[in-house]
Amino acid sequence: MNLDSLYSQLQVKTPAKLALVVLDGLGDLATRSQGFLTPLEAANTPNLDKLTEVSAQGRMIPVAHGITPGSGPGHLALFGYDPIEFQVGRGVIEALGLGLELKAGDVAARANFCTLNDKGIVTDRRAGRIKTEVCEELCALLSKKVKKIGDVEVIIRAGKEHRFVVIFRGKGLEGPLTDSDPNREGLTIPAAKPTNAKSAKQKKAAKLVADFYKAALPVLKGRQPANGFLLRGIAHQPAIPTFQERYGLRAAAIAVYPMYKGLSQLVGMKKIEGAETIAQQFERYLAEYNNHDFFFIHYKYTDKAGEDGNFEAKKKAIEDFDAALPILLSRCPDVLAITGDHSTPCALKGHSWHPQPVLLTSECSGSDKLERFTETGANLGSLGVFEAKYLMRLMQANAKMFDKFGA
Amino acid sequence: MNLDSLYSQLQVKTPAKLALVVLDGLGDLATRSQGFLTPLEAANTPNLDKLTEVSAQGRMIPVAHGITPGSGPGHLALFGYDPIEFQVGRGVIEALGLGLELKAGDVAARANFCTLNDKGIVTDRRAGRIKTEVCEELCALLSKKVKKIGDVEVIIRAGKEHRFVVIFRGKGLEGPLTDSDPNREGLTIPAAKPTNAKSAKQKKAAKLVADFYKAALPVLKGRQPANGFLLRGIAHQPAIPTFQERYGLRAAAIAVYPMYKGLSQLVGMKKIEGAETIAQQFERYLAEYNNHDFFFIHYKYTDKAGEDGNFEAKKKAIEDFDAALPILLSRCPDVLAITGDHSTPCALKGHSWHPQPVLLTSECSGSDKLERFTETGANLGSLGVFEAKYLMRLMQANAKMFDKFGA
Repeated sequence: MNLDSLYSQLQVKTPAKLALVVLDGLGDLATRSQGFLTPLEAANTPNLDKLTEVSAQGRMIPVAHGITPGSGPGHLALFGYDPIEFQVGRGVIEALGLGLELKAGDVAARANFCTLNDKGIVTDRRAGRIKTEVCEELCALLSKKVKKIGDVEVIIRAGKEHRFVVIFRGKGLEGPLTDSDPNREGLTIPAAKPTNAKSAKQKKAAKLVADFYKAALPVLKGRQPANGFLLRGIAHQPAIPTFQERYGLRAAAIAVYPMYKGLSQLVGMKKIEGAETIAQQFERYLAEYNNHDFFFIHYKYTDKAGEDGNFEAKKKAIEDFDAALPILLSRCPDVLAITGDHSTPCALKGHSWHPQPVLLTSECSGSDKLERFTETGANLGSLGVFEAKYLMRLMQANAKMFDKFGA
Repeated sequence: MNLDSLYSQLQVKTPAKLALVVLDGLGDLATRSQGFLTPLEAANTPNLDKLTEVSAQGRMIPVAHGITPGSGPGHLALFGYDPIEFQVGRGVIEALGLGLELKAGDVAARANFCTLNDKGIVTDRRAGRIKTEVCEELCALLSKKVKKIGDVEVIIRAGKEHRFVVIFRGKGLEGPLTDSDPNREGLTIPAAKPTNAKSAKQKKAAKLVADFYKAALPVLKGRQPANGFLLRGIAHQPAIPTFQERYGLRAAAIAVYPMYKGLSQLVGMKKIEGAETIAQQFERYLAEYNNHDFFFIHYKYTDKAGEDGNFEAKKKAIEDFDAALPILLSRCPDVLAITGDHSTPCALKGHSWHPQPVLLTSECSGSDKLERFTETGANLGSLGVFEAKYLMRLMQANAKMFDKFGA
C-alpha cells in the first residue's frame, strides 16, 4: 500500500486552523566571518524565542540530500507534494503569478526582453531593465501581431521591468523544453529543445517555439534596447490535486510576490490580496481567519538578503518578521509551522541544499525545551532531520486530522 | 535490490542473546502543566540512568510521519516488519491472544456482547460489562447452536467480561470487512461490508457475517442485558514470515496481556507464561535464557496510565519498571533495546504519532554520554530519529549478525 493512500484513508475532518509561515530562504550557515552565528542566531527575536518554549523543532531536507531546490520544488514540498513527482516549470509558475488562468496542457514560458546586436548575439540579457511601461507596450504590440501560430493560440502578458510570460494554448503540446537562453551575454539565442527526445508532444512544442521566434523577432526589430527575447522554464501545466482534494482543507495564500501567488494557485489556494508588509499579511490572516482552514503566508526578504550575501539585511529581515509576529499570535492558529522553503546562505549568495530549520507548535506539539529557534537549536529537536514533504502530514497530525492506524 | 533481501543475504548465525523490552506507550510530551517534564523525565530511574552510560539513544517513528499506530502496527514495526505492508486485523490479534490457533485464511472478529432494545437499537455497547462467567456461558450456548454456516466452521471463544472472539474457518474467505458496530449507542447494528468492493472473497465473508447474525441473534433472545453482539476488526490471518524464517532467531514472548501474546504468536514467538509482574517477567527471562535467542518482554502499565491521562501513574509505572530492571541486568543480554511501541502522551489520553525514545545497549552500541534515558535526551542520541521497523536491524547488527556488504 502506498503511503499517500494510507494518509488519505486515515484522514478525517476537524475544525482546526493551520498556518504555514514561510520565511523564504531562511536557513543559513554559521561561518567564521560572522563569529559562527547564522542570521537567525544573530537576530534579536523575542517573539520567536517565546514561541519556542511550547514548540517542537527540527530540520527539513527540501528535496533530497544535496539537492538545491528552486522556489517551485521548495514550496511544493512544503505543501506536502513530492517535488520529484510533481515538477512544475518556472514558466507555469510565473504565468499563474501574473494572474493568468492556465488550462491543463497549456505550455507556458517565462520571458525576458533582451538586446541583440546585428549578428544576433545577446549583448544584454535584461535589455537594460526597461521600464514596466515599455514592457507593457511591447507585449501589447506582440499580442496584436502574433495571435496564433498554426492552430495554437499565443497569449502574452507583461510582468515587471523586462519580464513577460508567453502561453501556448493548443492540442498535443508538452514540456519541459530546454531554455532558449544562452545564460550569459556574447552568445546567440539557442533553440528550445525537447528534454525527452522520444516525446512527439515536446517536439511539436519545440517547433512552435521556433516558429514563435520567427514571427515575433521581426516585430521587435529596431526596438532598442528590447529587440529580442529569451524564453526560460518552458513547461506545461501538470495535473496536481488541489489542497481541497488532497487534504480536505480550504486553503488561502497570503503572498506578495507573483511566484508564490502562482505556486499557491497551482494547488488551488485562494489568493488573499491587499497586503504588502508582513504586518499587513498577518492582519489579512486575522481578517480571513474564519473563511479558510489553512493559511500559507510567504515572506520574501530573508531570501533576497541571502541572495545578495547581505548578512545584516537578512538578520534585519528576520527581526522585522519577529516584530510583526505578535499580530499572528494574537489569534494563534491551532497548528503553526514556521520555516523556510530552503536555505539561502549569505556565504553562498544563493539557494542551497542545507536543511532549513522548522518550528512546529500546537496543543500537542510538546516542547523540546529549546530556548531559541535557530539552525543549531533545531538540530536538537524532536522532529529530527526529515524530508520537507512530510511537514504537512505532521501539521495534519497536530490538527488531529488522522484516525489511528490499525488496532 | 530490495533492502530486506540485502539483510537476508548478509545475515549470519551468532550465539548472541537479544532482548526487546517494550514499555507500552512509553513516549510522552513535555507540557507546561507538568513543568515541561515528561513522565520519563520526572521519574526516578537509577537503573536506567546507569544503563544509559553505556548505551546509544534515539527516537523512532512508529509507522510514518504523523501516523498514530494501534498496538498491532506498533509492535509489527518493533518486530522489524513494515507495518504498512503487513496489516493485521484486531480480530486476528484478539483470537491469537486468547490462545486460539488460526490457520491461513481464517477470518476472525473481535466481538462484544451488547444490549438491544425491541427495535434492534443498541442501548449499551458493552451489555453492562457482564461478568466473565456470563460471557463464557453465552459463548458455550452460541457454540452449541451455531457450529456451521453452510460449509464454514464457526469457532467462538469467550474473553474477559463482555468480550469474545468469532472465527470463521472455510474456503475462499478474506477480510478486512467494515465493523458491524455503530460505534455509539442509539443506532442499529450496521452490516459488515467489504472494504474492497471488487473482492469476491470479501463479499463471501460479508454474506457469512450476515448469516451468522441471522443464526445467532435468536439464540440470545431475552438474554438481557446480553441479547446482541457487535463485531469489529473482521480480518483474515495474513501470511507473515516467522522470526525463525526472517532472522534465524528462536524467539520467545513474555507478555501478560492477550493482545501482545497474540502479536508475538503472529510472528512465531513461543509464549512464556507464568508471570504477572514485570519482576516475574524478568525472572522468567532468566529461567529461559538458554532456550531462546530473542526475548520480547512487554510491560503494559505505562500505556494504561497514559490512556487515563494519569501522569503520576505513568511516572510510577516507569519507576516500578526501573526497580525490577536489575533482575534482567543480572544476566544482561548481548543486545538490549528498551523502548515503547508508540507514545501515549498523558496530555492526549491516547496513542500518538510522536516518536518514542529508544535505548540500545551492547558491547558495540557505543555510548552517547547522556546522563539519562528521556525523550529530550534521546533527541541528542547517535541513532537519530528513524523508523521503528529498522530497530531489529540495528539489534541484529549489534549482535554481529550481518556480514560486511561488499569488499
